[in-house]
Amino acid sequence: MNARQVGVDLGGTTFTVALVDREGRIDFKSEHDTLAHEGSEAVMGRIAAAIRELLEQAGVKPSELTGIGLGMPGLHDRERGVCIYASNLQWRDVPVRDRFQQWFDVPVVIENDVRCAALGERHFGAGRGVDDMVLVTLGTGVGGAVIMGGKLQRGDGFAGEVGHQTIDPDGMLCSCGNRGCLESYAGAIGIVRRARAAYARRPSDRLREVAGKDLAHLTPKHLSEAAVAGDETARWILSETGRYLGIGLANVVSLLHPKRIVVGGGVARAGDLILSALREEISRRVPYGMDTTEVVLAELGPAAGVIGASTLVWSAVA
Amino acid sequence: MNARQVGVDLGGTTFTVALVDREGRIDFKSEHDTLAHEGSEAVMGRIAAAIRELLEQAGVKPSELTGIGLGMPGLHDRERGVCIYASNLQWRDVPVRDRFQQWFDVPVVIENDVRCAALGERHFGAGRGVDDMVLVTLGTGVGGAVIMGGKLQRGDGFAGEVGHQTIDPDGMLCSCGNRGCLESYAGAIGIVRRARAAYARRPSDRLREVAGKDLAHLTPKHLSEAAVAGDETARWILSETGRYLGIGLANVVSLLHPKRIVVGGGVARAGDLILSALREEISRRVPYGMDTTEVVLAELGPAAGVIGASTLVWSAVA
Repeated sequence: MNARQVGVDLGGTTFTVALVDREGRIDFKSEHDTLAHEGSEAVMGRIAAAIRELLEQAGVKPSELTGIGLGMPGLHDRERGVCIYASNLQWRDVPVRDRFQQWFDVPVVIENDVRCAALGERHFGAGRGVDDMVLVTLGTGVGGAVIMGGKLQRGDGFAGEVGHQTIDPDGMLCSCGNRGCLESYAGAIGIVRRARAAYARRPSDRLREVAGKDLAHLTPKHLSEAAVAGDETARWILSETGRYLGIGLANVVSLLHPKRIVVGGGVARAGDLILSALREEISRRVPYGMDTTEVVLAELGPAAGVIGASTLVWSAVA
Repeated sequence: MNARQVGVDLGGTTFTVALVDREGRIDFKSEHDTLAHEGSEAVMGRIAAAIRELLEQAGVKPSELTGIGLGMPGLHDRERGVCIYASNLQWRDVPVRDRFQQWFDVPVVIENDVRCAALGERHFGAGRGVDDMVLVTLGTGVGGAVIMGGKLQRGDGFAGEVGHQTIDPDGMLCSCGNRGCLESYAGAIGIVRRARAAYARRPSDRLREVAGKDLAHLTPKHLSEAAVAGDETARWILSETGRYLGIGLANVVSLLHPKRIVVGGGVARAGDLILSALREEISRRVPYGMDTTEVVLAELGPAAGVIGASTLVWSAVA
């Protein structure tokens, strides 16, 4: 079966468009600069041009297209297909669906990008066959999406903010204004902050080799590399990250008892350096936790976004 | 329309049977001792006898009955109608549905008791018309049930354990083995423990008047009474209870963003003595929290259990 759905993954810096088939296979894909400062009309126009180019490359006529699924950050009115607010795009009340429907005359569905990634993993990745699944994405922030009873759950709009759970009532101040959010410990910024504090007390040549002398550009990836090379402090910081995540995900298990928790995002590439401690912490906090809820790595990588967005066109889960 | 569904609310000490109509009105109701020590067959036999008596009183023939909904504590296999485990009844693998179907020849559905209360509130109480709702029950423990997308969510069985969220990673040891569970602060035992500690430092004649001289039988109800009578320490303890609950419920809002949180159970009778601080804490921790999620008191009282159980027979929410 030929790919007939377009998935779009729109981020603050770049966007990706892809032609995806019903088995989640990407036929054609291209990546472009978002240039958000040019405004929503210009960005949408550029996305439309990229889609047309894609169809041409693939030899798919616009009339053969079954629909366009569009994932982007922020809060959306799904019924009206309007992006209510997306801070890193500076969009407010942008009628995304109407615009693309005018241009392509096919069904257009918009959804939050993390939820799109969850749909991608649910259909074709680490969440296959599971009706109760929570996705956690580890990147600059800690994002999340909840699928329960075989349906994406949005609640009143913001459901899935795994990273803004309080894990320490009087803890670190978070960018959201709360204290002690999981994200302020286990997001990339939190990880780097904890690492800097630890290395200030105990400098490491191994880390300097991968991250540079003054650690000015230190990232979680450097810590993974140093940890693999045997650096004890890096191992400790990543395992502490797992423990913090385990506290938050133990709460997810208590509240939702999902069959599977899928951990994605760039920072998750650290794998067991984070996941071992994470699983242990869930076991410590929920007696039945790790016997019943699996914690696994995401499978689709950065493509989860476009693949998931393409499923918006036909999926019952969305 | 006449009441044609039987609801049963089976607890460790007493059970209630009621004939309930499709508008949630109780036509006939009776309460009995559970006598759990006599074993599951004896208890089920006593429930069946109570149901027969009820039908007779109401002039309803067994053949006119549309079904029996049975709420009880513990974990159940809903598909097979088996109570897998209920600690305060000492039941293990009890084939509840088969037994009652043999006796009454009508559909029999079993469900966890807190979830039944949630169904009751959802259909006929404080959750009317709301598809995304979380019930929290404040009693000896802190229980919960989750309705999302218009469906009761069970996850892999234990979904809804609001009280076993960690709100302080290194906090009080909880009966479940975890540290810092919400329940160990905001359950009746936790409330009384905090109150004893506070009054040890600052004795109160007002409290002694309602709770006795040595506070040996102190309950949250005594604290409410003393608070209403102007006792500052009691007010503080209850408001602290609200703050603890607010931390846990802020997490619920972050994760599920329900339209409504319904607070029930005996301790909730303290009303705004707890709820004011609770709402304030949610506002502090979730920027959009109290603008979008309502926190309201349950409306059905202890009858929520039998009423909700009766809806198991016909409800699409269950």
